[in-house]
Amino acid sequence: MAYNEGMLRDGALENRTIIVTGGGTGLGKSMAAYFLRLGANVVICSRKEDILEKTASELRQSTGGKIIYVPCDVRKTEQIENVIAKAVEAFGQVDGLVNNSAGNFISPTERLSYKAVDTVVDIVLRGTYYFTLALGKYWIENHIKGSVLNIVTTYATTGSGWVVPSAMAKAGVLTMTKSLAFEWGRHGIRLNAIAPGPFPTKGAWDRLFPEELAAKFAFENRIPLARTGEHQELANLAAYLISDFSAYMTGEVITLDGGEVLAGGQFNFLKEITDNQWDAIEEQIKSATRGGKSPE
Amino acid sequence: MAYNEGMLRDGALENRTIIVTGGGTGLGKSMAAYFLRLGANVVICSRKEDILEKTASELRQSTGGKIIYVPCDVRKTEQIENVIAKAVEAFGQVDGLVNNSAGNFISPTERLSYKAVDTVVDIVLRGTYYFTLALGKYWIENHIKGSVLNIVTTYATTGSGWVVPSAMAKAGVLTMTKSLAFEWGRHGIRLNAIAPGPFPTKGAWDRLFPEELAAKFAFENRIPLARTGEHQELANLAAYLISDFSAYMTGEVITLDGGEVLAGGQFNFLKEITDNQWDAIEEQIKSATRGGKSPE
Amino acid sequence: MAYNEGMLRDGALENRTIIVTGGGTGLGKSMAAYFLRLGANVVICSRKEDILEKTASELRQSTGGKIIYVPCDVRKTEQIENVIAKAVEAFGQVDGLVNNSAGNFISPTERLSYKAVDTVVDIVLRGTYYFTLALGKYWIENHIKGSVLNIVTTYATTGSGWVVPSAMAKAGVLTMTKSLAFEWGRHGIRLNAIAPGPFPTKGAWDRLFPEELAAKFAFENRIPLARTGEHQELANLAAYLISDFSAYMTGEVITLDGGEVLAGGQFNFLKEITDNQWDAIEEQIKSATRGGKSPE
Amino acid sequence: MAYNEGMLRDGALENRTIIVTGGGTGLGKSMAAYFLRLGANVVICSRKEDILEKTASELRQSTGGKIIYVPCDVRKTEQIENVIAKAVEAFGQVDGLVNNSAGNFISPTERLSYKAVDTVVDIVLRGTYYFTLALGKYWIENHIKGSVLNIVTTYATTGSGWVVPSAMAKAGVLTMTKSLAFEWGRHGIRLNAIAPGPFPTKGAWDRLFPEELAAKFAFENRIPLARTGEHQELANLAAYLISDFSAYMTGEVITLDGGEVLAGGQFNFLKEITDNQWDAIEEQIKSATRGGKSPE
Repeated sequence: MAYNEGMLRDGALENRTIIVTGGGTGLGKSMAAYFLRLGANVVICSRKEDILEKTASELRQSTGGKIIYVPCDVRKTEQIENVIAKAVEAFGQVDGLVNNSAGNFISPTERLSYKAVDTVVDIVLRGTYYFTLALGKYWIENHIKGSVLNIVTTYATTGSGWVVPSAMAKAGVLTMTKSLAFEWGRHGIRLNAIAPGPFPTKGAWDRLFPEELAAKFAFENRIPLARTGEHQELANLAAYLISDFSAYMTGEVITLDGGEVLAGGQFNFLKEITDNQWDAIEEQIKSATRGGKSPE
Repeated sequence: MAYNEGMLRDGALENRTIIVTGGGTGLGKSMAAYFLRLGANVVICSRKEDILEKTASELRQSTGGKIIYVPCDVRKTEQIENVIAKAVEAFGQVDGLVNNSAGNFISPTERLSYKAVDTVVDIVLRGTYYFTLALGKYWIENHIKGSVLNIVTTYATTGSGWVVPSAMAKAGVLTMTKSLAFEWGRHGIRLNAIAPGPFPTKGAWDRLFPEELAAKFAFENRIPLARTGEHQELANLAAYLISDFSAYMTGEVITLDGGEVLAGGQFNFLKEITDNQWDAIEEQIKSATRGGKSPE
Repeated sequence: MAYNEGMLRDGALENRTIIVTGGGTGLGKSMAAYFLRLGANVVICSRKEDILEKTASELRQSTGGKIIYVPCDVRKTEQIENVIAKAVEAFGQVDGLVNNSAGNFISPTERLSYKAVDTVVDIVLRGTYYFTLALGKYWIENHIKGSVLNIVTTYATTGSGWVVPSAMAKAGVLTMTKSLAFEWGRHGIRLNAIAPGPFPTKGAWDRLFPEELAAKFAFENRIPLARTGEHQELANLAAYLISDFSAYMTGEVITLDGGEVLAGGQFNFLKEITDNQWDAIEEQIKSATRGGKSPE
Repeated sequence: MAYNEGMLRDGALENRTIIVTGGGTGLGKSMAAYFLRLGANVVICSRKEDILEKTASELRQSTGGKIIYVPCDVRKTEQIENVIAKAVEAFGQVDGLVNNSAGNFISPTERLSYKAVDTVVDIVLRGTYYFTLALGKYWIENHIKGSVLNIVTTYATTGSGWVVPSAMAKAGVLTMTKSLAFEWGRHGIRLNAIAPGPFPTKGAWDRLFPEELAAKFAFENRIPLARTGEHQELANLAAYLISDFSAYMTGEVITLDGGEVLAGGQFNFLKEITDNQWDAIEEQIKSATRGGKSPE
């Protein structure tokens, strides 16, 4: 069975309504598509109505699933509440939320204005806690055992230079995931997160990395599994986490990155040594220690 | 779809041969059963031949799958190599390994003898690196893209008193997972881990906790999702991690514990406050600050 | 030598100018006092001018050190820039920054308004990145090897219910610490953090916990070292981190909490078992396994 | 005050007796020297009696402090118990333990024999828990509030290829630190750890890295603070952790590595981009987005 096919049994998300923010493009669109194929009702939202409309129409056709779209700037609580209202109107209730909207600047931090940092933090962190708070109140009031999936990053945990606004914001989202998982567990509400490595989307990706940079720092070379991810792989994991099959998981963040985050290990730079070089080193050590390895 | 049914599409593990250590009982047996249902060839091993034989026979009948057993003390490298040889003989090659054998003492650490600590460390850590090293050499030599799944614990990361030998050993296994995931990524070998919360097995569980303790410290009360896990839930995650559907994941540990590990959050003791008490507190704060919340 | 005396050699902070936000009260005041005793010039700021004036005057007298105060709402970038300007005017340059301003609500999250969450996030996260960004630009431009110390919390990492706005914000600060430590290392700028456990300050503490709660959930009972911290203990660590003695440390967060955060370990609930009970358990296990412990 | 001078006030360790394993050379020797200067009684041990004798004699002369040596293979419990007995005989009691003995192989893991892995794990993990268990029993029995300092590595947490035996063993030590810190907190026993980056010692260092490797992978280039550490910097931190000044800290691991471990951040590879290149990138983005940055 190929790794980039859908993995869950048919109907795994039947009778569930899931909101996907940033659902018009990229990974958001890929997740929405797979949720539809698994039987879910899907609501996509983002700031760009024309793109939402096109995506909804395309996915309706390709999957035969039930999808609506509602324009929404996640920094505006009344627009968020409108999305929820429209979703309830269309499908009866809301069961899941994927916080996938994001923004990023790749830049030396000292070159950023205060306002530029604010913009990213507001979209990523504020938008996520607004939406989660709005749905949480709705779920608790209506005794619905909702499920939240937050798309974060590995650098939410490790930190990373040159993407500092996003790093701070995603860290906030990650800790919100763990915090509310504990607090709202009593209500049957679950929150989990995925930290994806590089899953390139034509467009978003190109804008993020000017061409010469993309070439110079090819992700493929720095990732243990030597490739970027395919959208279906992330959609598989997302569907698992938003479905009841993960009913015993909460407060967890799962990294899906081909091993990229492991690079920080102190001696991992040794990957550049070839087998022949290791042969030579071994020989040298043997003669130095006269007959065998000896740890210090 | 019920959370405790199998989640992967039929045939997800077809043509794969998987060794499960400690596969005669408990979670090991449950994983073996689900792998068989998904089409895998399974090899179970442990020190107890009579139990292995019974389990293999039972699973062969209930699933119709191909299973063999080989007695093995994972502290003995020649017995490990025998398991691999027998597996290759029966099924042609080995594709996956689940390091599930374990041992544990629940005791104040200062009451343990040096030897008691050694015993647990040898079964859990030594046994795991012996088996992984043996299979890793075989996979690299034969250009097989193998997959390892290590069953660890949340206290491998957080630490825990009263299970110190197991904590040290599982921590070693966890770091081995991350280390080899990076180093062996170039060979297409993946290693991941699961840190399960309480998944009671009649027998193992009872031996671990004397009855009065079990009653006093009911896991159900301390777990945000207010229940213990069901074996199929763990088997679902294990099957995902050992299958190609997780082909882009390596070096990752996934916690499946109903949120148990989150309890360390500094203010999580407040879960004991009732809604009525919160009403009273809110009232009191409001009057203290004269009309509204104010953070300090 | 008593643990709650000053630990660094005299003069350890001579000729260094350090800004302490939230420096008028509590731990901020205690750190400022110790920095002054070690020879530093200190600038304290907060929103409350009357308190600042009183604290500055008191510390000037008690330590004989050079201290000024500048009122500042850390959510206002022009006020931050004014603090820096005043500090440079008074002392020639700024060398260190302690981001210590904070706000918090202890409340079920679903009871909070969007605006309440915003308020905490803005003070804690926005205020911290504004101040750090302002000083970072100044340091890079003037080739000063500045040092930042961020006061965070253990729940920035673990998460915690009932303090979710603070948890998200502190998580952002923590990841900023790691991110800029890497990015700005080339400029000789260091950033570190402390995650303190309970260091009660008369006033702040009382407002945080209504009396009956404080009694019910005494920190002393839940902390392995069975006491709360003393301010000088935190000031000692802070002085080390802001001084050149930690010149090789950056991107690090140090927990000083009497072991409080360790409570999350899966079997740590067993601390409630007495020695006599362990004797009984041991006896029972021995007879069950007929002569000795046996892990499996 | 220079960063590589002693930082603690004189007499900080007076009347304390501290055992340093691996104390004959390298960082162990440097810590022992500083402990002596601070007034401690010191016991060094390792397998090499001639080196111990020379070091003890040298340190006695240079510091005027009280030091003895006892040969000890930390894999032998009776030799460990002999060290403790000799220490008590000479100084009345033992107050602190620095587990600093270590062993390592730098090698592709699949090239290691089972026995080679065992050797490192036995010295690092087994030796550490033997010594800690022996002293813990002694401290609990004699109501002494002892303090343990374990020297680990950053890859105990992150993992690292090519040093897998050491990574597993150090991970075990780290988790032991957290586990016993909680469990033995009631007895007033504290355990902490340091994860040092590169602190080269002539000899140990050279043996670890063949010359051509050392040149190719100069640590200086990969470390944010662009240098290796000096022994006094580590000794300062170690003295703090073994002294009463850290009386409120337990279960903590402190990284002192110039920011080396931060390298794993996803976008930290961008450090190679020059300021001029950033100017060009900024220009390009501006024109692409027509007038200003816009996050996606």
